Amino acid sequence: MSEAIKTDVLIIGAGPCGLFAVFELGLLDMKVHLVDILDKIGGQCAELYPEKPIYDIPGIPLVTGQGLTEALLEQIKPFNPTFHLNEMVESIEKIGDPGFRVTTDAGKVFECKVVVVSAGGGSFQPKRPPVPGIEAYENISVFYAVRKMEQFRDKEILIVGGGDSALDWTLNLHPLAKRITLLHRRDEFRAAPHSVEQMRKLVADGTMDLKIGQVTALEGADGKLTGAQLKGSDNTTSTISCDTMLPFFGLTMKLGPVANWGLHLENNLIPVETASFETNVPGIFAIGDINTYPGKLKLILSGFHEGALMSQKAHRYVYPDKRLVFQYTTSSSSLQKKLGVN
Amino acid sequence: MSEAIKTDVLIIGAGPCGLFAVFELGLLDMKVHLVDILDKIGGQCAELYPEKPIYDIPGIPLVTGQGLTEALLEQIKPFNPTFHLNEMVESIEKIGDPGFRVTTDAGKVFECKVVVVSAGGGSFQPKRPPVPGIEAYENISVFYAVRKMEQFRDKEILIVGGGDSALDWTLNLHPLAKRITLLHRRDEFRAAPHSVEQMRKLVADGTMDLKIGQVTALEGADGKLTGAQLKGSDNTTSTISCDTMLPFFGLTMKLGPVANWGLHLENNLIPVETASFETNVPGIFAIGDINTYPGKLKLILSGFHEGALMSQKAHRYVYPDKRLVFQYTTSSSSLQKKLGVN
Repeated sequence: MSEAIKTDVLIIGAGPCGLFAVFELGLLDMKVHLVDILDKIGGQCAELYPEKPIYDIPGIPLVTGQGLTEALLEQIKPFNPTFHLNEMVESIEKIGDPGFRVTTDAGKVFECKVVVVSAGGGSFQPKRPPVPGIEAYENISVFYAVRKMEQFRDKEILIVGGGDSALDWTLNLHPLAKRITLLHRRDEFRAAPHSVEQMRKLVADGTMDLKIGQVTALEGADGKLTGAQLKGSDNTTSTISCDTMLPFFGLTMKLGPVANWGLHLENNLIPVETASFETNVPGIFAIGDINTYPGKLKLILSGFHEGALMSQKAHRYVYPDKRLVFQYTTSSSSLQKKLGVN
Repeated sequence: MSEAIKTDVLIIGAGPCGLFAVFELGLLDMKVHLVDILDKIGGQCAELYPEKPIYDIPGIPLVTGQGLTEALLEQIKPFNPTFHLNEMVESIEKIGDPGFRVTTDAGKVFECKVVVVSAGGGSFQPKRPPVPGIEAYENISVFYAVRKMEQFRDKEILIVGGGDSALDWTLNLHPLAKRITLLHRRDEFRAAPHSVEQMRKLVADGTMDLKIGQVTALEGADGKLTGAQLKGSDNTTSTISCDTMLPFFGLTMKLGPVANWGLHLENNLIPVETASFETNVPGIFAIGDINTYPGKLKLILSGFHEGALMSQKAHRYVYPDKRLVFQYTTSSSSLQKKLGVN
């Protein structure tokens, strides 16, 4: 186990609500680390609608998911939060009153006074392709993400999908792999045109294969893949030899390990009270789409409010002996100093 | 009594929370009229800190009160709300279940299903100068606002103050008045430099007077002013002849007539529940700085959240037979049509 990272507050989820919570916590002198399962900051905004306009952020008539993420990052810059991306919180253990030890699937350990669950709809997890018996091959020869490229050196790889992930990994693994086959259900790609062009050039050069169709069955034993049966768009069937399959069918939202953290759940949501958005476990708060309370709307603007009220109660846990005086950024020179504007 | 203006929702207070409530109500097809005691839109943002930066609006690292007001006006433009400025709501009478008749001090009458009190700290009211017995002269020969300029034709007017209101009315009433004296406690003015320049030119031309000092007593009987005693900055005393006094000492926030609307109050705030921010009177909601509930913070961002949740319950009163399906502006083409972007 690596040495524990000590922080006042650990936020699980780096979507807009988690980001703005950094601001409200920062104004009250609390240091924050954030963990997110995605490889980028912004949560659903960044993953599901980076380019799509949002119209209902108060005071911003139009902003994209990406634009909102960038604005929030700019706003919280003075508080210098630390992000741990591509990591999933697996367990939360109570070690104080309050006080928690939080462990991620990358083996990182945090020790903090306060945990804020700001995990949206839960964890983004890869969609499993509808291939019978695929579970038996997962993490042995079927992988939904590439953590270390070296692992795939000299492999006979079948990459399945037509989006950016499929095309990017095709191009990135091409120099390492023994042979790569890219399989997509039609001869059109959602990926960046430049990537598609590069892939087509490799196919034309004869250094990789492109197949149009779908995987119908896997061949192999003990999780070790030897081949995949394909059905072409013309209904012909064929078999392709491979020892590794990388399906990139997009992400889906699952509650994931949140269910194992000892928090009450109602329909996969975390009930909270509305004075500070604290859960049934003192010191663990839930803000944004993952919480529920009477009147709850899954709006980003509500998550902002929830983060502000949460911060007041968090302050009591982090600084039990300090009295909190409520101040405004517009009039308080001490807050303005923290923001670096005075 | 004028004919009643019929609307779904009447909002009392055109500050940022009232403005954003128009957006949330508009998305749900509710028409809104707003009444505000100020002569401009924006509430405290416009009156107290139009030029001062605000740092804690989520997603907007820096905006002035004026800038926020303008952005919100742009955002609610598709819903075309009607503003009634310079008017104060005097009474709210129950006429339905729910249903209200609302009357302003200008004699305007509204009939609506829902009332939203978004009145910040209450009403902005002029500060009374510390002159003994001034109450007896108020609204007879002492006025804190100029509603009709004609009223001051041929008057001997003492204008007191050094800000924009004092200077603007000095210049505007100068052509009508018999004589104007401007009195300020020191020979420096907070008003726009151009106005100060114009005033000094009139003084140099001998067509008006400028005195430095303070009013210590009023002379007259039955509310009719005949003169004012002044103490100069050099402690000399003098008397100035006048039949009208206009003190412009700025505005102060008072609860005002809110206290007479039949709503429960706690320390001059309106208690609400947190599922829809409804008051003890069904159909009357309170959002923003004027309400109170466990955990309440007087933050603009909280007023935004309160307005969003309020709108859901308001919809039930305005459209009792329509089922409300929650939709997102990012994905709903019907909401986008209302916003004029699809």
